[in-house]
Amino acid sequence: PRYRIATIPGDGIGMEVVPEGIRVLEAVGRRFDIEFQWDHFDWSCAHYRTHGEMMPDDGLARIRHHDAIFLGAVGFPGVPDHVSLWGLLIPIRRQFRQYIALRPVRLLRGMTSPLAGRTAKDIDFYVVRENNEGEYSEVGGRLFRGTEREMAMQEAVFTRTGTDAVMRYAFELARKRPRKHVTSATKSNGIVHTMPFWDERFASVKQAYPDVSADQYHIDILAAHFVMNPDRFDVVVASNLFGDILSDLGPAVAGSLGIAPGANINPEREFPSMFEPVHGSAPDIAGQGIANPIGQIWSGAMMLEHLGHADAAKAVVDAIETVLGDPASCTRDLGGTASTRECGAAIAIAAAA
Amino acid sequence: PRYRIATIPGDGIGMEVVPEGIRVLEAVGRRFDIEFQWDHFDWSCAHYRTHGEMMPDDGLARIRHHDAIFLGAVGFPGVPDHVSLWGLLIPIRRQFRQYIALRPVRLLRGMTSPLAGRTAKDIDFYVVRENNEGEYSEVGGRLFRGTEREMAMQEAVFTRTGTDAVMRYAFELARKRPRKHVTSATKSNGIVHTMPFWDERFASVKQAYPDVSADQYHIDILAAHFVMNPDRFDVVVASNLFGDILSDLGPAVAGSLGIAPGANINPEREFPSMFEPVHGSAPDIAGQGIANPIGQIWSGAMMLEHLGHADAAKAVVDAIETVLGDPASCTRDLGGTASTRECGAAIAIAAAA
Ligand SMILES: CC(C)[C@H](C(=O)O)[C@@H](O)C(=O)O
Ligand SMILES: CC(C)[C@H](C(=O)O)[C@@H](O)C(=O)O
Repeated sequence: PRYRIATIPGDGIGMEVVPEGIRVLEAVGRRFDIEFQWDHFDWSCAHYRTHGEMMPDDGLARIRHHDAIFLGAVGFPGVPDHVSLWGLLIPIRRQFRQYIALRPVRLLRGMTSPLAGRTAKDIDFYVVRENNEGEYSEVGGRLFRGTEREMAMQEAVFTRTGTDAVMRYAFELARKRPRKHVTSATKSNGIVHTMPFWDERFASVKQAYPDVSADQYHIDILAAHFVMNPDRFDVVVASNLFGDILSDLGPAVAGSLGIAPGANINPEREFPSMFEPVHGSAPDIAGQGIANPIGQIWSGAMMLEHLGHADAAKAVVDAIETVLGDPASCTRDLGGTASTRECGAAIAIAAAA
Repeated sequence: PRYRIATIPGDGIGMEVVPEGIRVLEAVGRRFDIEFQWDHFDWSCAHYRTHGEMMPDDGLARIRHHDAIFLGAVGFPGVPDHVSLWGLLIPIRRQFRQYIALRPVRLLRGMTSPLAGRTAKDIDFYVVRENNEGEYSEVGGRLFRGTEREMAMQEAVFTRTGTDAVMRYAFELARKRPRKHVTSATKSNGIVHTMPFWDERFASVKQAYPDVSADQYHIDILAAHFVMNPDRFDVVVASNLFGDILSDLGPAVAGSLGIAPGANINPEREFPSMFEPVHGSAPDIAGQGIANPIGQIWSGAMMLEHLGHADAAKAVVDAIETVLGDPASCTRDLGGTASTRECGAAIAIAAAA
C-alpha cells in the first residue's frame, strides 16, 4: 500500500528529528512493502514571523485528505503560546476530531527508570486522554480587569458524547491487551459538577465491557500511584487536563520523557490522525544536530500501527530498543556520542534488518 | 502559654491516630512549658448517621475561638463525599478563610524514597496550595440531564485577592528558607483564561520580593520534574487543583505519603487554622490498632510551629526521625512490629527527652 503523509516539522529540533522519522519509516517500509508520499508543510513560528499566521487560511483543507499527519514540534521563544499552539496544534486536534490523545508509557529495554528497582515488566501501560473538550475550553473571561477586584473565570465543559467516546476507546484498547484493565482518573470528591458526571458515564460505559475490569482513583492519589505502583496500570482514561498531566508524568516515571511518542487520533477515520513526539521544540539545543530523534521515530511507529501495520510498527520499536543498547548510536542526553542523524541511521538499519 | 485546641478525630483510623498526636504534644509541651486544653468534637460520618449532618448547625461557631483545630480524617464507605467532605472539611477550610494548604515534602531520615539514589538532602520543599477558590467551585451544573445531549459544566474562579494572597504567602515562606526560591505551577498554554491571569499575578507579586528567585513550569512537565529532579524545588505555589495533585505527588516521591502532614492556614489569624494528616480514614484497617500515627503527629508539629513554637516543633520531627530508625517502634506499613499506641508512645518519649 501507499500512503500520503503530511509532514509538519515545525520549529526548533522538530526540523531535525522529522527527517530521521522519515528515514526510519522509509527503511521499514521497504522491508514490509509500504510506500509513503511525504508532503512537506513549513507551518511554524518562522512561517508566522513572515506571514503573520502559523498556517495559511486553507491549511486544514490542504491536509484534510492525507492519510496521516507527522508533526515535529511547534513553539519558539518570542511567539506566544496562544499563537503557536492555538494557531496550529489545537485547531488540528479539534477540527480533525482527534478526540483521543494516546500515549504509551513503557520502560524500554536499554532505558533506566528514575524509580528504584523497576524493570520493563513493571511499567507498560497507556494513557488515553480526552483531547477535544473538558478543561481546555475557550469559554470564560475576566471581570474588573486591572482593578483590585479583578477575577478570571474558565468553564470546563464535558459532554456525554465526548466523555463516552474516550471511555469506549479505552475499553476497546484494554480488550486487546492481556490484562484487560481500565483505570479512570477522577476528582469527584472536589470538582463537584463535571467529575461526578465523569464517574456516572464511566459506570455506564463499562457495562458494555464485562470482560474488562475497571477501577477509579482521584487524580491526586492516582498521580502518587504512578510513582509508587506503576505496575498497577494497564489503560488509564482521563479528561483533557488530567490526561495532559498523566501523559507527562507516566513517561517521566518510565525514564522516557525525552523519547516518548504521542498520537492524536480520530478513531472514525473521517480525518487524518496526527503523530508527534511528547517533547517540544527545545530551542536551547536546536540547530546543533544533537537532538534525540527517538520520540519522533517512535511516533512514526504509532502511525504505522494506526495505518494497520502492527508488524512494521513492532519492527521499529524493536530497532529502537536495539539501538538503546549501543551508546555509540545514542545521542548525548542518553549518555551516548551519536548525532541526531547517526542515531536515526542506526535505527533505520536495525529496522530494515 | 496555654492553648485551646478543638480536636475532631472524625472517622476510621482518625479516632486511633488523634490520641497519639495528643500524647506527643502533651509530652513535648511538658518539656517546653506549653499547655493544651483539648476539646473533643465527635463530628464524623457516625454523627451523620445519627443526626443527619456531619456537624451541628452551630458547629463552626463552637470552634470559632479555639486556637487551632486538630483533625484526624473524615469519610466512610456508605456516606457520599458531598456529605462527608462538603459537610465538614470544605466548610471549615472556607468559612475560616484557611486559604493556604501547606504541605512539607521531605525525605525524613529512616524513610526510603521510591526514587533511585535519592537521600534526605535531595527532597526538601514545600507545596503551597490555594485552598479556598479556583477549580473547586460550586458554580456549574448540567444541561439535558439524562439524554444523549447531556453535558456538565464547571466554572473555575480565580480572584486577584485570592491569587495574590497565596503567592505572597509562598514568597514570604521562601524568604525564610536558605534557597529562597519559588516555583509557580501554571498551564497557561492550555487553560487560556485563568492560567494566563495566574501568570500575570505571579509576575506582579514577585516584584515585591527581589531577594527571592522565581520560575514557573506548566503542570504537566512540573509533575514530571517532581520525579526527575525533586532537588530543583524549594517552595512550589499552585492553584487549588494543581496544589491538590502536587501535594500528594510530592509525598509519594519522598516515600512519605502514609506519614505526611498538612496544614490549612488562615494567615491573618482571624480564625483557627486546621492541622490534619494527608492520609484518609482508611476504613480497611480501622479499629485494628495498626494505623501509622506519624502523619497525625507530624501535623501536630506543624500546629506547634503555627502557634509560635518552632523549637518544640523541631523536637517532634526529630523524635519522629529517631523512631523511624527503630523497626520495633514502627507500624507494619513501615515494616515494623509496633501498634499505633506503641509507635505514638515511642515518639512521645523521644520528644520529651
Ligand atoms: C478529600 C478532598 C476533597 C481533599 C481535596 O481535594 O482537597 C483531599 O484530597 C485533600 O487534599 O485534602
Ligand atoms: C502545548 C500544550 C497545549 C499541549 C497540551 O497541554 O495539550 C502539550 O502539553 C501536549 O500535551 O501536547
